[in-house]
Amino acid sequence: MTEPLFSPENTPTEEIPKLVKNQLQTLLENNNLEQAKSLLVSAQAVDIAEAIESLPESWQVIAFRLLSKEKAIDVYEHLDTTVQQALIEEFKRQEVIDIVGNMSPDDRVRLFDELPAKVVGRLREQMSPKEREKTALLLGYQENTAGRIMTPEYISLKENLTVGQALQQIKRLGKSSELVYYLYVTDKSRHLLGMVSLKDLVLTEPDTPLSDIITRDLISVSTETDQEEVARLIRRYDLIAIPVVDREARLVGVVTVDDVMDIVEQETTEDIYTLGAVQSEGDNYFQTNLIAVARKRVVWLMILLFTNTFTSGIIESQEDVLQERVALAAFIPLLIGTGGNVGAQSSTVVIRGLSTDQVRSLGFAKVVIREAIAGLLLGLMLGAIAMGWAYLLRKDLSVAIIVGSSLVAISMLASVTGTTLPFIFKFYKLDPALMSAPFITTVVDVLGVIIYFYIARLLLGL
Amino acid sequence: MTEPLFSPENTPTEEIPKLVKNQLQTLLENNNLEQAKSLLVSAQAVDIAEAIESLPESWQVIAFRLLSKEKAIDVYEHLDTTVQQALIEEFKRQEVIDIVGNMSPDDRVRLFDELPAKVVGRLREQMSPKEREKTALLLGYQENTAGRIMTPEYISLKENLTVGQALQQIKRLGKSSELVYYLYVTDKSRHLLGMVSLKDLVLTEPDTPLSDIITRDLISVSTETDQEEVARLIRRYDLIAIPVVDREARLVGVVTVDDVMDIVEQETTEDIYTLGAVQSEGDNYFQTNLIAVARKRVVWLMILLFTNTFTSGIIESQEDVLQERVALAAFIPLLIGTGGNVGAQSSTVVIRGLSTDQVRSLGFAKVVIREAIAGLLLGLMLGAIAMGWAYLLRKDLSVAIIVGSSLVAISMLASVTGTTLPFIFKFYKLDPALMSAPFITTVVDVLGVIIYFYIARLLLGL
Repeated sequence: MTEPLFSPENTPTEEIPKLVKNQLQTLLENNNLEQAKSLLVSAQAVDIAEAIESLPESWQVIAFRLLSKEKAIDVYEHLDTTVQQALIEEFKRQEVIDIVGNMSPDDRVRLFDELPAKVVGRLREQMSPKEREKTALLLGYQENTAGRIMTPEYISLKENLTVGQALQQIKRLGKSSELVYYLYVTDKSRHLLGMVSLKDLVLTEPDTPLSDIITRDLISVSTETDQEEVARLIRRYDLIAIPVVDREARLVGVVTVDDVMDIVEQETTEDIYTLGAVQSEGDNYFQTNLIAVARKRVVWLMILLFTNTFTSGIIESQEDVLQERVALAAFIPLLIGTGGNVGAQSSTVVIRGLSTDQVRSLGFAKVVIREAIAGLLLGLMLGAIAMGWAYLLRKDLSVAIIVGSSLVAISMLASVTGTTLPFIFKFYKLDPALMSAPFITTVVDVLGVIIYFYIARLLLGL
Repeated sequence: MTEPLFSPENTPTEEIPKLVKNQLQTLLENNNLEQAKSLLVSAQAVDIAEAIESLPESWQVIAFRLLSKEKAIDVYEHLDTTVQQALIEEFKRQEVIDIVGNMSPDDRVRLFDELPAKVVGRLREQMSPKEREKTALLLGYQENTAGRIMTPEYISLKENLTVGQALQQIKRLGKSSELVYYLYVTDKSRHLLGMVSLKDLVLTEPDTPLSDIITRDLISVSTETDQEEVARLIRRYDLIAIPVVDREARLVGVVTVDDVMDIVEQETTEDIYTLGAVQSEGDNYFQTNLIAVARKRVVWLMILLFTNTFTSGIIESQEDVLQERVALAAFIPLLIGTGGNVGAQSSTVVIRGLSTDQVRSLGFAKVVIREAIAGLLLGLMLGAIAMGWAYLLRKDLSVAIIVGSSLVAISMLASVTGTTLPFIFKFYKLDPALMSAPFITTVVDVLGVIIYFYIARLLLGL
C-alpha cells in the first residue's frame, strides 16, 4: 500500500463516513487486514457500522472480527437489525457472550424485538443471569414507552454519603454504567429522592455532605410515559437524562438524550409520512420492497378515492346545470384545487400547533375563528383574481361571478374544515396528522362542488 | 393561606407548568410575596418563565424580582424576546449588569438579534469588556451557523497535565463554564488536539498523564457549518457537545446538545410548514396577527392559482369533447384528486429521504424507477375500482374505460412528477420541501386533465 491512510484531520467531517467505507472495502479486497484493523481503531462506531453494512455478506463477519472487543459491542449496537441477525448466525458461543451479553440493555431489547423467538431463546440461554434479568425487565414494558427505551444501568447513591465518598463509589461503578453525568439519590427502598450532577460533585469539596448539594425538585417520568413525551420533557428542561420510576415511585431506569434524539428523528419521519398520507412503520422506506410500498400506500388512496366518488356523484347529479352552461365545468379543478390548498395550509399549522403545544393555550374556538377570518381574507383576494380570469376566458359575467363568489365561500369553509378535523381527531385520541393535506383536499373537493353548484343554481335561477 | 402549597411529588410532570402558573398568579393577587418567593425557589426555570409571560405586564417585573440572582439569569434566558425586552425597559443599571451581563453568550446574542440597535448599544456599554468581546465574536458569524449558536464558555486543557491537575483546573474554572462534561485539549496556539470526558477523568487515577486518555479522532465543525448539519452530527455520533473550530483549526466554541434539540424542533416546524405551503419565519404562528398570516399564505396560493388557470384553460379548449359526453366532466375531480394524492405520497417520501440521507446512497435514477413502478401498481389497483364506479354511475362502457385507463396513466405520471421535482429543486440548491403535496397536487391537476382528454379523444375517435 502506497496510498496515505485515513487521515481525519484533513477530511471534512461529512466526508468521513464515505472515506471509511471506501478504505475498508479496498483494504479487504487487497486482503490487507493489518491496515484495515488500524483504520477501524481510529474510526467512529457509527461510521464503521455503515461501512460493514455496505460490504458483501461474507466479508461482514471478517471485518467485524477485526474490531477490539469493546469497540465490537459499540459497532454492533449501531448495525441494522438485518445485519445484526446475519452476524449472530456466524457468531461462536463466546462471541455471543462477549457482544450480545455486553450490549446496553436497551439496544439489546431493540434487537430481541426483531429476532425470531427461537434465536432470542438461544441467545438468552448464553447470557449471564444478571443480563437476562435486565432484558426481561425492559421487555416487560409496552413498546414506545419510557420503560422500553430506558437503560437500567445508572448509578444511584445513598443520601448519607459525603461528596468524596460519592466520587469513590462512582469510580467503582462508573465503568459499567451508561450514564455518569447525572447521579440519582435514592432511599433504602430505591425511592427517588433527588439528583446530583457529576459537575457538582467535582466542583464541591470532598467532605461536604452529599445532602447539601442534592437537587430535590426533579423532573421524572413513569415507565408508562410515551416516548414522545419523554423527548418533550428532556428538550423542555434541557436535560442530559431523565429518571424513570415505577408505580411505587422507585427508580428503575434512565433515558438519555442521545436515545431521545433518535426517537425525535424517527417520530418526525412518521409525522411527515402521515402528513403525506403514507402509512409508516418506522423502517427505512427506500429499503422496503415495492409490493410492501404499494400496500402501505394503497389503503389511504382507497379511502380518498372512495371520498372522491361523492364528488363525481354530485357533479353527475348536476348535469342539468352543466348542460345549461358547460363552461362551468372548466373551473371545477381550479376552485376545488385552490380550496384544497387553503384547507391544507390551515390543517398544517393546526396539526403542528397541536404537536408543539402552541395551540393548547389558545383553545379550539379562538383557533377556528382565527382561521375562518384568514380563510375569508384569502378567499376575497383569490376570488377577485379567479373572477377576472373566468371573465377573460369566457366573456360571460354570470359565470365569472359564480366562480368568484364560490371561491370566497369555498376558501372560508376549507379553512374551517382544515382547522376542525385535526381537533376532532385529537379529541377522539386519534393522530391529528391523519387530517393532513391529502385528506383535507379530498374533503374540500366534495364540499367545493356542492357550494359551486348551489351558487350556480342560485345565480342562474335554475 | 390555608391551601397546601406547590408539591411536585404528588403532581404528574405534565401538570407542573400549569400549576406554577396558577399558583404564582394567586399568590401575587393576594400580595403574598413570601410564599411566591418560595414557590419560585422550587420551580424549574422554564416553567417560571412561562408563568411570568402569562402575567399582566405590570406584574412581570415584580415576579421577576422575587428570584435569586442566579435563577433570575436562567429564567431570563427562557423568556420570550418580547418579555425580555419589556423587562429591560424596567431594569435598573445594576440589574442589567447582573442579568444581561451574566447570560450565556449564545442566549445573549439571540436577544441582541431581536432588540432595537439603540437598546443593544446601551446594554453593551454596561457590560464588562470580556462579555462585550464574547458577544461581538458570536455576532460576527452568520445566522444559523455553528459560530452563531456556539458558546465560547468551554474549558480547554493543555496536553502535558496529569489527570489530577486537569481536575484541579476544572474545579477552578467549572463554575463559569456552560459545559464541563467534555473537556477539550488544545496546544499553545489553541489548535484542537482532542478531548477527554469528565467521566474518564473521574474514573482514572490522578497521576495518569492526561495524554494517555485523550480521544484524538474527534468530530468537530467549523464556524460556518449550518446549524442543521451540527444537529445531524450530534445525533449521528451520540454527542453531548461538539467543538467548533475556525479556519485555522483553532478551538473557538462549543455547541451543546440542549441547544441542538431546540434547533431540531424549530427546523421541523419550518419543514412541516413548507410541506403545507405555508411560508414560515420561525416565529410562533398563533401569536402572529391575521394580516401577516394572510400575507404569508397568499403568495403560495397565488402561484398555485396561477398554475390552476392552465387546468381551466385546457378544459375550456376541450369543450367539444364535453359537449359530446358531458358525463366525462363528473370524473375530473376524482381523477386529478387521486393523481394528486399519489404524487403527494411520492414527494413526501422523497423529500423526507433527501433530508435524512436515506436517498443519497440510492441515487436519482433508482428512486425514480422505484416510484414509477409503485405508481403503476397503485394506478392499476385504483384504476380498476374507478372503472367499476364509473360504469355503475353511467352504465357507459366507453366512459368507464376512459376513466380507468386515465387513472393508470395519471397515477404513474404523478409518482414520477412527485419524485422528480424535489430532486430538481435539490439540484438547484432550493428547498425540496417546496415541492410538496399542494404543489404536486396542482401540477398533477394540469397533467391529469391533459391525459384525460387525450385518452378520451383517442377512445371516442374525436
